[in-house]
Amino acid sequence: MRILFWAVLSLLLASCGGQNTDGEPSNDVVSQQSFKWKLVTAWPKNYPGLGTAPENFANRVKAMSNGRLQIKVFGAGQLVPALEVFDAVSQGTAQIGHSGAYYWTGKAKAAAFFTSIPFGLNAQEMNAWLHYGGGLELWRELYEPFNLVPFAGGSTGVQMAGWFNREINSMADIKGLKMRIPGLGGDVITRAGGVSVTMPGGELYTSMQTGVIDATEWVGPYNDLAFGFHQVAKYYYYPGWHEPGSILEFMVNKQALNSLPTDLQAIVETAARAVNQDMLDEYTARNNQALVELVNVHGVEVRKLPDEVIRGLRALSEEVIEELAADNEFAKRVAASVEAFKQQATAYHGISEEAYYRARKLK
Amino acid sequence: MRILFWAVLSLLLASCGGQNTDGEPSNDVVSQQSFKWKLVTAWPKNYPGLGTAPENFANRVKAMSNGRLQIKVFGAGQLVPALEVFDAVSQGTAQIGHSGAYYWTGKAKAAAFFTSIPFGLNAQEMNAWLHYGGGLELWRELYEPFNLVPFAGGSTGVQMAGWFNREINSMADIKGLKMRIPGLGGDVITRAGGVSVTMPGGELYTSMQTGVIDATEWVGPYNDLAFGFHQVAKYYYYPGWHEPGSILEFMVNKQALNSLPTDLQAIVETAARAVNQDMLDEYTARNNQALVELVNVHGVEVRKLPDEVIRGLRALSEEVIEELAADNEFAKRVAASVEAFKQQATAYHGISEEAYYRARKLK
Repeated sequence: MRILFWAVLSLLLASCGGQNTDGEPSNDVVSQQSFKWKLVTAWPKNYPGLGTAPENFANRVKAMSNGRLQIKVFGAGQLVPALEVFDAVSQGTAQIGHSGAYYWTGKAKAAAFFTSIPFGLNAQEMNAWLHYGGGLELWRELYEPFNLVPFAGGSTGVQMAGWFNREINSMADIKGLKMRIPGLGGDVITRAGGVSVTMPGGELYTSMQTGVIDATEWVGPYNDLAFGFHQVAKYYYYPGWHEPGSILEFMVNKQALNSLPTDLQAIVETAARAVNQDMLDEYTARNNQALVELVNVHGVEVRKLPDEVIRGLRALSEEVIEELAADNEFAKRVAASVEAFKQQATAYHGISEEAYYRARKLK
Repeated sequence: MRILFWAVLSLLLASCGGQNTDGEPSNDVVSQQSFKWKLVTAWPKNYPGLGTAPENFANRVKAMSNGRLQIKVFGAGQLVPALEVFDAVSQGTAQIGHSGAYYWTGKAKAAAFFTSIPFGLNAQEMNAWLHYGGGLELWRELYEPFNLVPFAGGSTGVQMAGWFNREINSMADIKGLKMRIPGLGGDVITRAGGVSVTMPGGELYTSMQTGVIDATEWVGPYNDLAFGFHQVAKYYYYPGWHEPGSILEFMVNKQALNSLPTDLQAIVETAARAVNQDMLDEYTARNNQALVELVNVHGVEVRKLPDEVIRGLRALSEEVIEELAADNEFAKRVAASVEAFKQQATAYHGISEEAYYRARKLK
């Protein structure tokens, strides 16, 4: 399979018109050419985790290329708004973007599968599916008509279900609930009788404070603590059924990638891969710390969603995904691939990761 | 923290005597110099997962450096035996090695903590602790006197408890059990009244077949299937309490690393980071598949270690680690760091990863 991986990478590089496809090293003039790229993001500049990952990527690329590929990172709104990253990179306004694929379901319905779907794969499983389960090939096929080459670009881990000013004791409590929750998770809440709202992170604190919304999901303790949601919400519910392993994305303009010599193409690919893990490492460490602060310093009440609610949301999630697959041929293919992988992952992780978590703290 | 990371990396690179520490790109003569390295491993050449990772690393480095750093990978015994990797890289016979830190407890007792310890961190947590919890700094300090710079080099995920020809229904069943299990896990089995044995993977099949040993741990379904243990063992027990998140290692000879220009140093560091995740992706996907084959095709009986045994092994594991820490000042520092991280990780993963695994399959 490593052979397959390198064959795919070689094909990718070759198809990108690299000057050095015979496998021999060359220190030719072309490889010394310098490039300056713009990287647009869907996050505030240097936003913890999400926003520091693209900076980290740019730093790694600069160091590895000895400055031959310099990438300037723009926060949301600095060059283009957050939700125009896809178009900007597709059209070449910027050479590369960092965002989340589920923002682009208006462009391609199946995009949601490449970030996270309700009751889907967690981060470890998403990475395995993308890199050893055919996921990345599907993602590339989906973005190809848009002139974009996607790479996994980090993960937050399992998110929290969110902050609530209403107790959730049964599915009935979701009826009429005004909750900020985008994407397929939002469709599930709507189907449960709630009102799903989409709004940028920066507006959530005030909206919770003034009662415009009753609940909001965001990410997890690290990012949520920074936004101060504990000051305006009563309950912090888990687990994050709607985004169990959100993967972020780097998307590269195809012509821009093709114009790089093969060594710089390999540098871009490997830097993305390194940053993909680095973000999960950061969230894992920071979420741990932030949860302690939220509970011990701020007295946050952490609550588990009742089993009845988990079962209810899961049944509705299956409906939402089935309808999406029925409505869109590509989504159907991706859903089938994810589902097959999930069945095996659930079985194996039941006797490995999950069984170990249980064993470690068994009373 | 990104700033801290880059500060540390810059310091590392600067301390390595790089020619280009002013942050400006340079395409000078030095950076065009070519290097040929030898990479020695503790695995058979191209052994699935463990052995393909260093090949993958060498391929990435070659592609990114445009052939300026070419690394030839040697399987165990081709240049030096598996258990001489540490000395070979320390002394400069090879510039880089790929192995597991817990093989080197004879050199430095605290080394065990940097692979995996019984009832310790899983892969996601190990990576977070190493890269955002101070673990890598401790590891570098430990290896410094040996002229070695370590990097995380992949993970197998939670392993299986192993293959047994004796039922394990209580701690009493471990008395007299002859089991191949190295490291701290072996110490725990010994303390439980068993006989822990160390032998290379290639001898395990025959030893199980002939009854020289009653049980053996190895890795997980992907590697275990390849060795055919299902043909010579009755029961396949989980979870892998003794190696919950084994991290492999790249170790680089310090002078060899120093002799590289800074761009190649960054390439080595980032390639290792990418491969570190890639191996876990591979194991996660392949373990899923292999478990299905073991159960459905080969009719393997998968069994859970009883709670009583988990509790018993856990209590003995704590004793083993406490004694190690009491006996060695550096081990004491590392144990304290790991334990503090583990307490937070257990709390946060209890409401995220673990709670999600449960929710996904809740009946």
